[in-house]
Amino acid sequence: MTAQSRKVLQVLNGETLSPPPIWLMRQAGRYLPEYRQTRAKAGSFLDLCYSPDMAVEVTLQPIRRYGFDAAILFSDILVIPDALKRNVRFEEGHGPRMDPIAVSEIAKLDVRPVSGHLQPVIETVRRLRRELPDETTLLGFCGAPWTVATYMIAGQGTPDQAPARLFGYQHPEAFDRLLAVLAEVSADYLVEQIDAGADAVQIFDSWAGVLGEEEFRRYAVEPVRRMIDNVRARRPHAKIIAFAKGAGILLKDYRQATNADAIGLDWSVPLSFAAELQKDGPVQGNLDPMRVVAGGQSLDDGIDAILQTLGNGPLIFNLGHGITPQADPAHVSQLVARVRGTGQ
Amino acid sequence: MTAQSRKVLQVLNGETLSPPPIWLMRQAGRYLPEYRQTRAKAGSFLDLCYSPDMAVEVTLQPIRRYGFDAAILFSDILVIPDALKRNVRFEEGHGPRMDPIAVSEIAKLDVRPVSGHLQPVIETVRRLRRELPDETTLLGFCGAPWTVATYMIAGQGTPDQAPARLFGYQHPEAFDRLLAVLAEVSADYLVEQIDAGADAVQIFDSWAGVLGEEEFRRYAVEPVRRMIDNVRARRPHAKIIAFAKGAGILLKDYRQATNADAIGLDWSVPLSFAAELQKDGPVQGNLDPMRVVAGGQSLDDGIDAILQTLGNGPLIFNLGHGITPQADPAHVSQLVARVRGTGQ
Repeated sequence: MTAQSRKVLQVLNGETLSPPPIWLMRQAGRYLPEYRQTRAKAGSFLDLCYSPDMAVEVTLQPIRRYGFDAAILFSDILVIPDALKRNVRFEEGHGPRMDPIAVSEIAKLDVRPVSGHLQPVIETVRRLRRELPDETTLLGFCGAPWTVATYMIAGQGTPDQAPARLFGYQHPEAFDRLLAVLAEVSADYLVEQIDAGADAVQIFDSWAGVLGEEEFRRYAVEPVRRMIDNVRARRPHAKIIAFAKGAGILLKDYRQATNADAIGLDWSVPLSFAAELQKDGPVQGNLDPMRVVAGGQSLDDGIDAILQTLGNGPLIFNLGHGITPQADPAHVSQLVARVRGTGQ
Repeated sequence: MTAQSRKVLQVLNGETLSPPPIWLMRQAGRYLPEYRQTRAKAGSFLDLCYSPDMAVEVTLQPIRRYGFDAAILFSDILVIPDALKRNVRFEEGHGPRMDPIAVSEIAKLDVRPVSGHLQPVIETVRRLRRELPDETTLLGFCGAPWTVATYMIAGQGTPDQAPARLFGYQHPEAFDRLLAVLAEVSADYLVEQIDAGADAVQIFDSWAGVLGEEEFRRYAVEPVRRMIDNVRARRPHAKIIAFAKGAGILLKDYRQATNADAIGLDWSVPLSFAAELQKDGPVQGNLDPMRVVAGGQSLDDGIDAILQTLGNGPLIFNLGHGITPQADPAHVSQLVARVRGTGQ
């Protein structure tokens, strides 16, 4: 078996597979008892991300349990600001925190230590490719510049990223500079992941949905396009999924405008619209993670609706957002069996 | 002067006015020093809502200062669960809290005290109509059943209303019942506001954006449609604005499906899409509130883009979400002057 038999990669090349391949965002996570066990041994959350032994282990756990068609590197989008020395920490019950960046600090951001700082993550990718079954697609990832910038500016998550939106209006040049820095170091990081064995990479723009139309072009589309062009200039065959959560109608031109191979769809994307988007290229998504928590009929109904509408085109079955800690692992078995048509 | 000269009402009747009338969501709010002064005299936030003297005063403050074309009743969407005895409280720095409702409590919800409980709000409407300038449109409002239900289920605000989405999947019948109760008491409440002198009412579905397509129809569109039909059956000339924040592409049929006179647009709605929606009826919106905080060129640019795209059709100029406490009152003057073309 070779990379040619990796199903997620096949779909990224435009093929339609029936049943579609499946993986879940945040599939290595707190809903799994084996994850919680490993997590308890790590110190901080970032320690887990930077320990290849543990990061490999938690990445493999959902593959062992469910045989997903793709494994996604266990890491976090905020390792980039951490590598940029923004003092990132994950506080229990508070979500991520870091030092909010001032306008005057942006010009002085030192990108040199980034690659060195992230070598443990690259080592995790390298080991994963060795340890994964041949047929499993290995996905790397990073955050999109806009989404990473929102945390760097606010110093934390906020309900609608008002601090970053305001920063963009008040300091457009500094903001463009920050996005440019993030696009550059993130592209380098993706190239390193690809060289270490990632078959494809996903760019997470988790906060694309809070932007107006003009800001979406400037902050979400343009930097991601620049990243993708940068990666492709060096690795022409790189396969890239772009996931602009909440972008809604602005997804219409997103794949073409960013030059991504496939686009991720959140659960608020209507399936009729998703089918239109799929005419232009592969799509990934978009089951509401709450259906996995609910299980039963509502889980089956949600799966069936996606398969009926998108199953006859290039589709990577996934959730519309990360699986949540309260999901029952048995419901994930139900999900995988139903997508694969293997009953239960 | 009579109601015929009230500009917001004229637009709700389908007229195009140039310049368009303007008011701002949350225009009576913490960005105004006079509001903070009155607020300091009130005990809790709900005391302020239930004190006609103070509620009238804060409603009038932005009219005196800026001469907005509409005043909106000062109140909160959570007075409905408060009237339903859900123990609503607003905790400083924490947002609203209430007792999360259990499935078994839904069938027992007692709607009888609602109208009596809300009489101070109705009294506020009555006094406002007497005290407002004749040319000022008086708007009443309530929350949409889905949005109010999300708070009743979670007992608080949450980032993406996962508890209510889950509840809908797990307990569809109880959830439909809750939405039906809310639609009914809210329709009664709107009728009372109209009878007390409200020229028009707005229904706020602030959390419509977290719903998948099917849930949007069931939880957002249907209950709002039922409310509007209920109100119109009793008050055939009622004018109603429906604001489904974040609904994106699902706004396409929203006005027709709900039978609203006009739809509110949040700042993430692309102007080209807004122009399409406007062909079907009046629209209201949709400046990013962060532009008002930023002021200067980014404020002017945002205003101009809206006026250029939507100014030749029925438009009520507004923000795409409530004005925030950090907005400079001088920027609001800049905004009003520019929309009215009166320079500064």
